[in-house]
Amino acid sequence: MSLSKGVQGMATTSVPSGTSASAEVSLEEVALATRNHGMPLEALRYDTTPIGLHYLLIHYDIPALVPETWRLEISGMVTAPLRLELRDVLERPTSRRRVTMECAGNGRARLLPRTVSQPWLHEAVGTGEWTGTAVADLLDDAGLVEGASEVVFTGADRGIEGGVEQYYQRSVTLDELRETGAMLVHTLNGAPLPPQHGGPLRLVVPGWYGMTNVKWLTSLQVVDRPFDGYQHQRAYRTRQDADDPGAPVSRMAVRSLMVPPGIPDFLTRRRTVERGAHRLEGRAWSGSAPITAVEVSTDGGANWQAADVEVSEDPAAWSRWTFAWTAERAGETELCCRATDSTGARQPDEPVWNLGGYAVNAAHRVPVTIR
Amino acid sequence: MSLSKGVQGMATTSVPSGTSASAEVSLEEVALATRNHGMPLEALRYDTTPIGLHYLLIHYDIPALVPETWRLEISGMVTAPLRLELRDVLERPTSRRRVTMECAGNGRARLLPRTVSQPWLHEAVGTGEWTGTAVADLLDDAGLVEGASEVVFTGADRGIEGGVEQYYQRSVTLDELRETGAMLVHTLNGAPLPPQHGGPLRLVVPGWYGMTNVKWLTSLQVVDRPFDGYQHQRAYRTRQDADDPGAPVSRMAVRSLMVPPGIPDFLTRRRTVERGAHRLEGRAWSGSAPITAVEVSTDGGANWQAADVEVSEDPAAWSRWTFAWTAERAGETELCCRATDSTGARQPDEPVWNLGGYAVNAAHRVPVTIR
Repeated sequence: MSLSKGVQGMATTSVPSGTSASAEVSLEEVALATRNHGMPLEALRYDTTPIGLHYLLIHYDIPALVPETWRLEISGMVTAPLRLELRDVLERPTSRRRVTMECAGNGRARLLPRTVSQPWLHEAVGTGEWTGTAVADLLDDAGLVEGASEVVFTGADRGIEGGVEQYYQRSVTLDELRETGAMLVHTLNGAPLPPQHGGPLRLVVPGWYGMTNVKWLTSLQVVDRPFDGYQHQRAYRTRQDADDPGAPVSRMAVRSLMVPPGIPDFLTRRRTVERGAHRLEGRAWSGSAPITAVEVSTDGGANWQAADVEVSEDPAAWSRWTFAWTAERAGETELCCRATDSTGARQPDEPVWNLGGYAVNAAHRVPVTIR
Repeated sequence: MSLSKGVQGMATTSVPSGTSASAEVSLEEVALATRNHGMPLEALRYDTTPIGLHYLLIHYDIPALVPETWRLEISGMVTAPLRLELRDVLERPTSRRRVTMECAGNGRARLLPRTVSQPWLHEAVGTGEWTGTAVADLLDDAGLVEGASEVVFTGADRGIEGGVEQYYQRSVTLDELRETGAMLVHTLNGAPLPPQHGGPLRLVVPGWYGMTNVKWLTSLQVVDRPFDGYQHQRAYRTRQDADDPGAPVSRMAVRSLMVPPGIPDFLTRRRTVERGAHRLEGRAWSGSAPITAVEVSTDGGANWQAADVEVSEDPAAWSRWTFAWTAERAGETELCCRATDSTGARQPDEPVWNLGGYAVNAAHRVPVTIR
């Protein structure tokens, strides 16, 4: 396992609360991993991820919502509070947009010490074709009151987290809702939004990690100050220790993944590839800016070469990359990819540790046996 | 953790090859658990499991099949070998049937010593509405040769398992194909069969564990003797040790599960319920015979009471059960359910160990905190 320098430093001190010094995973974490699931990496081949292959992270339970009785409350700093039925939302102007979404905890499971939470390795990503109506337009119809600055989105999913009982809630600023073109989404890949993705209605904020995209919406409350709910103040912050206030997790860090080539071993997922010519392929994305480069190493990161990138028209969706590789000699090697976006941000070669295991966007490494 | 007497006996001897004496799980097992996923237990509420919530177990990779170029070969002991396009299959007579399917390894992760494989706890189940054409009728059209006894089904998914490189293959006898009404399925819940469920065409053998229902079919070969492929001779046998030839895994053992009541803790999935009246609900199924009873215990298995069972018309689909429970006192308890089928088979209260962790159908136990 590759460790950042920070991690090696940490390992000599005591293990922070809520983390594990073991690379082994508990049955409680397994219970999360058998509920929530990543996208099998071979599904990177699809421009739009088929329903059932997109990653899922469900904090509590999937609520039993019925479209016929479901209602959405819009309240707070609006001149005309609204109570909408699903058909009211469906009748509004819609747009359809391919948006890549990634869990903020993707890559967490390989850190040491490791946060005890959903043990994601690489696969917590997917690209949906989401259809919905602009949040900003709906709020304009409700009439924003002077001083309104952000919106608290509440879902119907209820549970206990860190000892705090809660409905799942996250806020987004009005500026961010406008800038990203955030949508209230009722349709995924042309079908009614499935229960596991937040049906009948969810929020999608292009470019942001998954935690922002509140599912099973029941209310939007417009407020005039930063929301300090659990998912902002306790969870989803990159901290160095429990006393560190940390920084909020927001947009997706630049990242790339590859379709593991060759064939897998069932148990270890270790890849075997034939000598000869291969076309490596994968996807790259960033929540902040268009992808400008993807580099590939076929020798474990000693040397890097540019891949061909088909930059997606809408930076909200991942870009496809390909790389011609000739596997010349039988033996073991490690294939790697790393992406750069137009802000100059590039994936680090090794993971950078933080307490919650958020936004861990190290280069993707795929060990292979050439035969 | 509850252990059967057999397990406690085992724990004093050496740990068999391919198993782990640890309740902790390796990152390789986590890599399997983040690819493959169970059905979140609250989805027991749906008669038919929505696409994306049905369990998935993919031995190797999801192959990149294209309906336009896909072909199915029917060969071996038939008078007229066939090579079919997808439209040839779609034009055949179809039937549509709700079938419950469960992974043979469901329940494996709580055994000790534990097979190192996909670490299923309870959730590896789902009920699809499958549309397809009868295998037996298609074989009749191809003309069975005297002496033909079974069919080897081959999928397009290739990998290495136990050191053996293979396409995934399982055979089913002609008698079993006829008796179960086995289908070549191209449609799930009214939609084209998704890639992760074996599209464009898979086998569904009602009543059998998932391993029989070969996905991504490329050929059916009719043979006159028992097939001895890896998935019959090495995998999917209930053995007591590596030298035990064991018995083949076949039809689903009787089993029930409940929707965990109340609200979960995010990390532990531990349930909290309010004092007062609750309606517990769940599903029960057996691959051999109709469900005749479901019993519920609200005190960890000390006392059992009959639940109300709505027996499904087609025993291939799970039956719904409900149970009125009044949580009278604050505190801790364990809710349990166990089912019986018309052969008299009943779920054991504790898991019964075998080397591969197959068909582990112990009563479902849900610890809850009443407040």
